[in-house]
Amino acid sequence: MIVDISQKILIVGLGLLGGSYARVLKRFGFHISAITKEASSIEYALKENIIDEGSTELDERIIGEADLVIFALYPHIFVQWIEKNQKLLKSGALITDVTGVKGNIVYKIQEILRPDVEFIAAHPMAGREVSGVENSTDKLFIGANYIVTPTEKNTPEAIQTCLELGRLLGFSNVATLSPKEHDEMIGFLSQLTHCIAITLMTCNDKENMENFTGDSFRDLTRIARINDLMWSELFIENKSALLEQMNLFIDKFNELKTMLETEDIESMRKMMRHSTERRALFDKK
Amino acid sequence: MIVDISQKILIVGLGLLGGSYARVLKRFGFHISAITKEASSIEYALKENIIDEGSTELDERIIGEADLVIFALYPHIFVQWIEKNQKLLKSGALITDVTGVKGNIVYKIQEILRPDVEFIAAHPMAGREVSGVENSTDKLFIGANYIVTPTEKNTPEAIQTCLELGRLLGFSNVATLSPKEHDEMIGFLSQLTHCIAITLMTCNDKENMENFTGDSFRDLTRIARINDLMWSELFIENKSALLEQMNLFIDKFNELKTMLETEDIESMRKMMRHSTERRALFDKK
Repeated sequence: MIVDISQKILIVGLGLLGGSYARVLKRFGFHISAITKEASSIEYALKENIIDEGSTELDERIIGEADLVIFALYPHIFVQWIEKNQKLLKSGALITDVTGVKGNIVYKIQEILRPDVEFIAAHPMAGREVSGVENSTDKLFIGANYIVTPTEKNTPEAIQTCLELGRLLGFSNVATLSPKEHDEMIGFLSQLTHCIAITLMTCNDKENMENFTGDSFRDLTRIARINDLMWSELFIENKSALLEQMNLFIDKFNELKTMLETEDIESMRKMMRHSTERRALFDKK
Repeated sequence: MIVDISQKILIVGLGLLGGSYARVLKRFGFHISAITKEASSIEYALKENIIDEGSTELDERIIGEADLVIFALYPHIFVQWIEKNQKLLKSGALITDVTGVKGNIVYKIQEILRPDVEFIAAHPMAGREVSGVENSTDKLFIGANYIVTPTEKNTPEAIQTCLELGRLLGFSNVATLSPKEHDEMIGFLSQLTHCIAITLMTCNDKENMENFTGDSFRDLTRIARINDLMWSELFIENKSALLEQMNLFIDKFNELKTMLETEDIESMRKMMRHSTERRALFDKK
C-alpha cells in the first residue's frame, strides 16, 4: 500500500518526530497533511514545505481523506484521540504510531478501534535532546532502529506496510518484536539507562563537582537532561517491565558492593572482564 | 624549580601517561630519562625521540641524577618501589605521581620516605581506552583536570612546582584538593560511574539486545570496557570513599523505584527537573 504515492498521509502531532516523518515522506512525493495543537507549527511546516496542508482543528475533510495516519502523540493523548475522534477516520484506513511503550497501548487501541480501521504499532527509536517541528530533520532516522510490534489482530499486509514505512523513513534496522519483547528491551536499553542517569545526577549535590568532571561522568549523564512530562509517563506506562530491569540492576550493583566490602578482587576482576567482553558486542557496526 | 630546564626529569613507568608526560616535557627542552619494565617501550621512546635515555634496569646513575621523578605506576607497585629503591634517589629530589587514589597512598609514601626527598602527590585526570607508550600523545591533557593533593608535610615550593608542572603539561584546570576531598570527588565522578557502567553491562545477559541499542545505552557503557587489573586495585584502594558514594546512589535509585511502584508522578517529575537543572552545570564550558 505505502509504495503507492497517490495515497494521502496524515500526521497527528507535528513535533520533532512527526515533523521528521513529514520531511522524509514529502520528499518521496506523498501528499502530507498534519493536525497539531500549535498554529505556529503548521505555519512553519507550510513555509518549509514539509506538509501540503494542515490544521489546528479536527478538520473532517483532512482526516477523512487520509489513507495512512501516523499518531505522534503522548500515549494517553493518543488513546483519548482514538476514543473521541475515530469516527472521523476513513473506512479502510491504516493507522500507526510512534509510542515508546507498547503493551499498555497496543491492545487498548486495538480493542476500542472500529473494525474497518487497522492499527499497526511501531516505535521509531530516534530522538534528540530538543523538541518541536522546528528541530525536525530528514536525517533523524539514519543509523536508528524501527520496531514494529504486531499482535494477532494485525493482517500480514499491514505488518508489511509498516515495515516498508520504516525502510522508507531511512531507518538502518527495521524489525518486528512482540509488544512484550519490545517493552522488556526498551525497559532495559532505554528506560533503565535514563533511571540511572537521573539518579547519578541527583544522588550527590556536593558543590563544585563540575570543575572536576571528566568525560565519563558527562557520558553517563548526557541523558539526565530529560523531558519530565514525557518520561514520567513512559516509565509509568511500562511500569512492570521497568521495575523488573531496575531490580536486575540493583541486585548486580549490590553484588559488586559486596565484592568491594570483602575485597574479593577475583570476583571483581571477573565481573569487569565479563563487562568488557559484553560491551564489545554493542560497538557500532 | 621546574622552570629551570637544566634540571633532569625521570619517569618511572613509561606507559600511556608516562609517555605523554615525556612527550610534552621533552618539547620544552628538559632532559628526560625513563625506567620501565619493557625493553620495547624504551626502544620505541628513543626512536620517537620522546626520551633522552632509558633503561629496564634500576640504573643507579639515571636515578641518582634526577631532580624530579614522576612515578606512573600502579599504586601498590609505587609503594613497593619506594620501599625498596628510595636509597637510589638524589638528595633534594622532588618526587610526584599519577595515582588515581590519594588517601591510601600519600600518607604511606610520605611516612616511609627519606627526609631529604619530598613527595608531592598529583592526579592527572586524563586517560584513553588504550594503553602503552605507543598510544601516548602530547595532546592528552588538553581540556583535562590536574589535581595536586598536598599534606601538612609538603613545602610551599613543592606545591608550587607541582602546580606549575600541571600547567606545563597543558592541563586546562590545575587545582589543589586535600587527599580526602580528592578521594570523595573521584569516588563519585569516576569510580561510581565505572561501577554503574559495568553493572549495567552485566545485569541482563539477554541475547540480541545489541541489535536494538541506541546512543543512550552506548554512552552509559562506553567505560564498561575496563582494565580489570587497574580498576579493581583503584576501587579497593579507595574502598571507604567509594562505598559511601555507592550507598548514596543506591538510596536515590531506591527512592525512584518507590516513586514508580506507587506511581508518584509528581515526585518523579520533580526528580527529573532537579536532574535537568543540575546537569546544565556539568556542560563543557
